Amino acid sequence: MLKVAMLSTGEEVLHGDIVDTNAAWLSREFFQNGFALNKRSTVGDAKTSLVEELLMLSFNADVVVVNGGLGPTTDDLSSECAALAAEQELKLFPEWLEKLETFFAQRKIKMPESNIKQAMLPEKAIILDNPIGTACGFKVQINDCWFYFTPGVPKEFKLMVNEQILPDLKKQYPQQVGLECSRLYTFGTTESGISDKLDKLHLPQGYVLGYRSYLPFIEVKLFGPRNDLDTRVKLLQMIYSHLEQHVVSVDEPMLEHIGHLMAEKGMSLALAEQSTKGWLSNWLLSNAEIEKLSGHSWILSHKAEEGLGHQDPLAASFALAAATKEKCATDLSLVTGMLNEDHFTVSLSAPQGEWGQTVKFNRAYASGEQKQIIGTIAADMLRRYLEGKPILAKYSSVTTVKDMYLPSSVLG
Amino acid sequence: MLKVAMLSTGEEVLHGDIVDTNAAWLSREFFQNGFALNKRSTVGDAKTSLVEELLMLSFNADVVVVNGGLGPTTDDLSSECAALAAEQELKLFPEWLEKLETFFAQRKIKMPESNIKQAMLPEKAIILDNPIGTACGFKVQINDCWFYFTPGVPKEFKLMVNEQILPDLKKQYPQQVGLECSRLYTFGTTESGISDKLDKLHLPQGYVLGYRSYLPFIEVKLFGPRNDLDTRVKLLQMIYSHLEQHVVSVDEPMLEHIGHLMAEKGMSLALAEQSTKGWLSNWLLSNAEIEKLSGHSWILSHKAEEGLGHQDPLAASFALAAATKEKCATDLSLVTGMLNEDHFTVSLSAPQGEWGQTVKFNRAYASGEQKQIIGTIAADMLRRYLEGKPILAKYSSVTTVKDMYLPSSVLG
Repeated sequence: MLKVAMLSTGEEVLHGDIVDTNAAWLSREFFQNGFALNKRSTVGDAKTSLVEELLMLSFNADVVVVNGGLGPTTDDLSSECAALAAEQELKLFPEWLEKLETFFAQRKIKMPESNIKQAMLPEKAIILDNPIGTACGFKVQINDCWFYFTPGVPKEFKLMVNEQILPDLKKQYPQQVGLECSRLYTFGTTESGISDKLDKLHLPQGYVLGYRSYLPFIEVKLFGPRNDLDTRVKLLQMIYSHLEQHVVSVDEPMLEHIGHLMAEKGMSLALAEQSTKGWLSNWLLSNAEIEKLSGHSWILSHKAEEGLGHQDPLAASFALAAATKEKCATDLSLVTGMLNEDHFTVSLSAPQGEWGQTVKFNRAYASGEQKQIIGTIAADMLRRYLEGKPILAKYSSVTTVKDMYLPSSVLG
Repeated sequence: MLKVAMLSTGEEVLHGDIVDTNAAWLSREFFQNGFALNKRSTVGDAKTSLVEELLMLSFNADVVVVNGGLGPTTDDLSSECAALAAEQELKLFPEWLEKLETFFAQRKIKMPESNIKQAMLPEKAIILDNPIGTACGFKVQINDCWFYFTPGVPKEFKLMVNEQILPDLKKQYPQQVGLECSRLYTFGTTESGISDKLDKLHLPQGYVLGYRSYLPFIEVKLFGPRNDLDTRVKLLQMIYSHLEQHVVSVDEPMLEHIGHLMAEKGMSLALAEQSTKGWLSNWLLSNAEIEKLSGHSWILSHKAEEGLGHQDPLAASFALAAATKEKCATDLSLVTGMLNEDHFTVSLSAPQGEWGQTVKFNRAYASGEQKQIIGTIAADMLRRYLEGKPILAKYSSVTTVKDMYLPSSVLG
């Protein structure tokens, strides 16, 4: 089996001043392309520890991607350490020096002396182009292992991996088969709730499930062979049927899905937020399609609530939804009511009537998490309405205390 | 020199489905406490690769923190691999079994058989208590290296590190001196802009600077000896004087600082957002002190702008600020105007008058980044007002096109 590793370098990464998102990204990308990592490691800028780690990896892996340390400053040591570990001389690569000179000339800046360093590579290195930065990547063999050195800037790193390293690896190791990935986005259930339902499924050879959770969603990923559409569609339907009540979208995140639904129906939306304090507007309006179809949003302070004169929070939330829709002259309005202790309300007003519910949290959440959960429940009511599904559903993080539907005929 | 390493385990971390925030957190915490990491690595759930990595680390480090793999399921292998690497038997620790039984009894749940596994540790292990979960940590020696095994759940992990591992390490290695860290939060400059100014400073022995950037802020960290207040204060003043125009707060993030300033002055605030679409409300109102002092916020759609009848965006933004302050009956109002191409406006209305500016981005930013920058410039105007500083400043990411101040006497 091909052994693949990644090495991240730099004091800032090692001491936690930067969260290593390049590592998480590469790991996902390589997994899906058939080059799943066996190991990842991180060292600082000390020359000895970097050389030591390069040698250690060279004995234990077939392919290593090294990230960072290709800049022009004195603490950028990757090329020098690569040369030491490979027992090669550092050599000036005139073709990259030329690129550097062009790069600076185009920007009408004199090239700083220190940048010459970026054209000094181990003598047997093969250059990997970087069309958007000054640090070229390179490929070099240390013992029996091939090392790909890459720049730390995420944009440059990702481009180099996608356009050069992955194609090169696929050519070198044609036997590694990439996987196709389909995604179901779920909300309102737990990872163990999902795996209880899905672990008993017998997946055909070559198919495997993965979960990725980031509050408040859990993404269910089906990996499997490419070009096997029949089986894939059948499996997806089977998974969908087990999770149906919690699936908010397929192959696109919930927000994009709601954007498409709104554009399709051409319905406009206004928002009024109490407990979510702007979280819901900020999230929904970051989608261009929803933004185009939106009227004003209000974020109401405590004082507003007192003025409404409703004893019952659900009634207050209904009144606010109706008022918002009317004032903004939109087709729909969505309201998150006040949070009282652990109780809150959410309501949706539509041409057919109004739906609302009072719910309470099942456990303590930080206030940022509360806003996410309340806002996502509100957005899920909107999604359900646009999909023609029952508007009110059950979610694992909350319990419904009361719900209500008033058709327009009753509302007058 | 003491060699400290961390090993993260689990397929989800290795394949990038979880970003390893525990690793970044531990790295920062250990650095500050005098136990800077030399190396970090990540392996999956394969027994051989986990044992191999434990052995490799045992030869190259003095202290290793292992994170994850202590759960009750079959892919939780850390204890078993620790026993294999240490050449010890796995043994039932009755004191932890008792804790587990109490844990489940209190929740009135029958303990699943699978949880017994969490009380099976290498025979010479020393238990590390976990008061908030079912996975105990443990400490065990492999070759000459001490390993601390910890649960993956961030809350449990952090508690165990702070309450047990760090105190234990400090007792074992009293010669490792922890550092005190002071922080200056800056906005509107670049990391190279900061280091150009600070790199030429001669810091006394034992002091070192670090930077941590997360859009839109760059945190400047001064590490140095504890209980050396005189020198520290002098250094901080020196650093402050070099960065003054960009420092938004000291030893607390900008948002908390604004919260304290508002509470101190007892001034109330209303918001109107166009370009930031809820980002600013969501951010500012997540601070409890600001929230308490806030009136409504409006998030206005495109259509609103058309209705205002102002040709000049800055005049429109002034009008909106005045209207918002009046309608909400607050002392202050803050407005982010429409984004037209790369231009936008921000205004602040206060009892003394109104300040506003039209600025343009110096380069292309993603729309989420635009909202952050615009919103933070608005918040910085508010901070400057509350601190009695000049309201209008220069920021590296934007260029001022026009600015204006109208005292109340003119506004009538």
